[in-house]
Amino acid sequence: MRMNKQKTLRELLNSKNVEFFMEAHSGISARIVEEAGFKAIWASGLTMSALNGMRDMNELSWTQVCEQCEFMANITNIPILLDGDTGYGDFNNFRLLVRKLEQIDVAGVCIEDKLFPKTCSFINSESQNLTNIDEFCGKIQAGKNSLVNKDFVIVARTEAFISGAGLEEALKRAYMYAEAGADAILVHSKKDTACEIEAFMKRWDNRKPVIIVPTIYFKEKVEKFEEMGISSVIWANHNLRCAIHAMQEVSRKICNTRSIAEIDNNIISMNELFRLQNVDEYQIAKQKYTNSGI
Amino acid sequence: MRMNKQKTLRELLNSKNVEFFMEAHSGISARIVEEAGFKAIWASGLTMSALNGMRDMNELSWTQVCEQCEFMANITNIPILLDGDTGYGDFNNFRLLVRKLEQIDVAGVCIEDKLFPKTCSFINSESQNLTNIDEFCGKIQAGKNSLVNKDFVIVARTEAFISGAGLEEALKRAYMYAEAGADAILVHSKKDTACEIEAFMKRWDNRKPVIIVPTIYFKEKVEKFEEMGISSVIWANHNLRCAIHAMQEVSRKICNTRSIAEIDNNIISMNELFRLQNVDEYQIAKQKYTNSGI
Amino acid sequence: MRMNKQKTLRELLNSKNVEFFMEAHSGISARIVEEAGFKAIWASGLTMSALNGMRDMNELSWTQVCEQCEFMANITNIPILLDGDTGYGDFNNFRLLVRKLEQIDVAGVCIEDKLFPKTCSFINSESQNLTNIDEFCGKIQAGKNSLVNKDFVIVARTEAFISGAGLEEALKRAYMYAEAGADAILVHSKKDTACEIEAFMKRWDNRKPVIIVPTIYFKEKVEKFEEMGISSVIWANHNLRCAIHAMQEVSRKICNTRSIAEIDNNIISMNELFRLQNVDEYQIAKQKYTNSGI
Amino acid sequence: MRMNKQKTLRELLNSKNVEFFMEAHSGISARIVEEAGFKAIWASGLTMSALNGMRDMNELSWTQVCEQCEFMANITNIPILLDGDTGYGDFNNFRLLVRKLEQIDVAGVCIEDKLFPKTCSFINSESQNLTNIDEFCGKIQAGKNSLVNKDFVIVARTEAFISGAGLEEALKRAYMYAEAGADAILVHSKKDTACEIEAFMKRWDNRKPVIIVPTIYFKEKVEKFEEMGISSVIWANHNLRCAIHAMQEVSRKICNTRSIAEIDNNIISMNELFRLQNVDEYQIAKQKYTNSGI
Repeated sequence: MRMNKQKTLRELLNSKNVEFFMEAHSGISARIVEEAGFKAIWASGLTMSALNGMRDMNELSWTQVCEQCEFMANITNIPILLDGDTGYGDFNNFRLLVRKLEQIDVAGVCIEDKLFPKTCSFINSESQNLTNIDEFCGKIQAGKNSLVNKDFVIVARTEAFISGAGLEEALKRAYMYAEAGADAILVHSKKDTACEIEAFMKRWDNRKPVIIVPTIYFKEKVEKFEEMGISSVIWANHNLRCAIHAMQEVSRKICNTRSIAEIDNNIISMNELFRLQNVDEYQIAKQKYTNSGI
Repeated sequence: MRMNKQKTLRELLNSKNVEFFMEAHSGISARIVEEAGFKAIWASGLTMSALNGMRDMNELSWTQVCEQCEFMANITNIPILLDGDTGYGDFNNFRLLVRKLEQIDVAGVCIEDKLFPKTCSFINSESQNLTNIDEFCGKIQAGKNSLVNKDFVIVARTEAFISGAGLEEALKRAYMYAEAGADAILVHSKKDTACEIEAFMKRWDNRKPVIIVPTIYFKEKVEKFEEMGISSVIWANHNLRCAIHAMQEVSRKICNTRSIAEIDNNIISMNELFRLQNVDEYQIAKQKYTNSGI
Repeated sequence: MRMNKQKTLRELLNSKNVEFFMEAHSGISARIVEEAGFKAIWASGLTMSALNGMRDMNELSWTQVCEQCEFMANITNIPILLDGDTGYGDFNNFRLLVRKLEQIDVAGVCIEDKLFPKTCSFINSESQNLTNIDEFCGKIQAGKNSLVNKDFVIVARTEAFISGAGLEEALKRAYMYAEAGADAILVHSKKDTACEIEAFMKRWDNRKPVIIVPTIYFKEKVEKFEEMGISSVIWANHNLRCAIHAMQEVSRKICNTRSIAEIDNNIISMNELFRLQNVDEYQIAKQKYTNSGI
Repeated sequence: MRMNKQKTLRELLNSKNVEFFMEAHSGISARIVEEAGFKAIWASGLTMSALNGMRDMNELSWTQVCEQCEFMANITNIPILLDGDTGYGDFNNFRLLVRKLEQIDVAGVCIEDKLFPKTCSFINSESQNLTNIDEFCGKIQAGKNSLVNKDFVIVARTEAFISGAGLEEALKRAYMYAEAGADAILVHSKKDTACEIEAFMKRWDNRKPVIIVPTIYFKEKVEKFEEMGISSVIWANHNLRCAIHAMQEVSRKICNTRSIAEIDNNIISMNELFRLQNVDEYQIAKQKYTNSGI
């Protein structure tokens, strides 16, 4: 019996504790997130792009993003929340995306209130234009109405702080998105403290769970987020960032020493690689299906 | 002017020095390989599969493999040699593969003399059945004859040692493959010393360059390979193996500490990530093309 | 509520009447099949290949085939039976295929007892080699055991007559495949009468429904198939064949006359095209979601 | 030696005669266009979408469109001009598209001055909003500057008439696009006479070739277009429209008569299908490469 990842995600967002989403960008990193003990995966647009050497400006097509999500969903049992950028177009593109995500058993999608193609939130403040509120609300509704599994989660992310539009705009948008049917609100900020988030939470009436992404204000303690009433925290890009760090170190070392003898402590064994790929299951199945004495 | 990566690869294989190919499995890892100083990339079937949580038994379709190679080729300037397994079928499937690889500017492909679907060489000795020699030679010829750019490299890999068929079989096959038009011979071995390779090289007349993959006999010194007359060494899976190691460590630590504050030394900065994605180029281009005062 | 296409297909195969599957090779042809009154669609490997200008020798990758099936399933409500060739590899490749087909709501798959890459059954008798029976039974079992929805249909197709192996071999194989779990048996023949099929049906004990493909023996009457006890008939390639005929005529005419004024009787109107694409639904949705007065 | 399809397309556009582009939407229809005698192919966004049962509102991702173009380019020797809608995003998305099209040997692309996602030009006048002129010029320049093969053709299509903006706007835009580097101007109109086109041509100084699409004003004579100085005419959707007509007829007939015996005159033979797939080439190659007596 297949688990209902959609329901699990919905419950996580509405639980009393602060929950944590860890970034993944590939099947193998998704599996690592699950094995590390996390209850949910953040399929990051930034890192899925970067993995392929592409930029976080919708350089990947939406079907390429879905292909990567499919690999991630196939090898894990915990829910995946896709960073769906702006939904890759209008209400209609977003409906197509939602239908596809349901098929491949992704548990939810987060869309942000910017224009397509989006620009990565951490660069170029001046090009972080917000979309029209009504249009974004229509997009949320179109997504909700197209669901087969009503537990599928749609998160609305406001870039009001990112674009410099300020607290009132952030609140106004969050309320409108909640009313349009969003299951949670992601409030993004690129300050190096949680000041914007704090201001937001003081005014927010908790009608919908709030998710944050402390990439820049990473020094804040989780306890502070708990006090504020944050529902969930996304560690949004750290698996790819550590993987790149390791590959840079190891590649340079191998290139310089012309040997792999000295990197043993920094790599997993071949057997561990095979375990992560479920090679055992294949071997057992091969025995079973190729010596088939029906 | 686009570089001729095919010609560069051909020259590397025929150079007097031992050359090194470093494994990559994604656009970003390919870029890291280039920046580390390597002159060529090994697009590994094992690690491209594993990245997606798939097994090295042709679970990825050949078009999925090509998509990953395309990302790798787009972001690098050094040649890529694709680990093309058995060519994903017969002579005709191999011709289609070669045509596609030329289009996406991969510089060469290595095919091995096993049956489709292949089994990863490091597991299940008993299922490493070798293909018929004539059929494999026909496949090599079909590939060569379908080339548009005659510099595109086709490497024939013999799994004679892997399958337990022994030295005479390895030599016989290598000679036949060379005669059929292979540009180099890859001799694979899973012993923990280079004994099989050494025995092979003593009898081989160097009519074609020899490539090796010291994944298991990694303790052997490069000087030994030089003495033997080896053309090139492939470090076949170490980028993914170190990336996984790092992600396992970091994911566990973040999960346990509920914080990303203490992993700073193990991750690259956001700016370094943007550099690897060429965000600068985008920003300059945006300035140029969106304020266009023609 | 989504229909259970898998169950519908299963019921069709086991109904008392002769049922008919009509070939489709694209989303639009699938929709046409449904609108014409057919109860089921045959997603033909031959015509899906030919549509793309490819040959029916597994030139398309299995993921490319699935992409086309996905378009077909998305736009129709009747079940699709995929012509899955040999399953695109071994038992393991077939399990992956089945998992994917379930995701995209294809209702069943037919696999044939030849080697990968297959050769189109209507050409090259001498290269129609049959696969080992035990291996093929193992493949059927692997597929069945990997199902989430137990109604998903797996049809075993024997090419015994195509390969010239004769009646006894056909029967032996059919019995073995039925025992291994196949939900129906497809018996293929390229005679210009139904003689081989007739001989088969006289000896077959009807433990599983039998499907036929009268591409070459098309002059036989359906009543004859009914008498024999045939479950289902596949019209296997006629949509693409008539589409090509029409396009050849119309393209030539337009080229010669330098005008489209005289082809009106042979083309559908723009409005009919929009109807087939469900443009109306889009316009209503656009009204709803872009003037959203929540 | 591969032909330079890009140069051929450029020469066609600049030839003294009216040239004709015939619509194709798949590999096989592209081949039919070539065999019918046309010198160039129009890869229509409308019909490529419709083939898959999708709407002409950018429901297909840009990578899915490229996949279909790749099949078309692989099987033909005449140039393909892709109907690239709005370029699938901004200047940067368009650069990515152009790079990909060069790889797969498409000869040129046409982009239109509307917003992403576009709406099919023949429906919903009120939603045919034009894009900002400077932005569109920047997009053209970005495409031109990213070319490897400088013969690759970029056509700028103005929807000024479609949107109801009128002649002066059409002319203004056409001049700006020409100045920005467009190799030709496509002027679209959905009147049932060529009145808008005629008015445009009277004022246009012929600095760049003009292409038209007489889907609605199909009753106008070619001679009239010649007099006006039109460079090229696109028959934009007639292959799919006649293919659908034929499939509807044939599917209904087969469904009603439960027989394929009476549709012989309306379908091509199996041998003709094999010819279109180049099965002969495969058979010869198989002989050559599988009996390989090196």
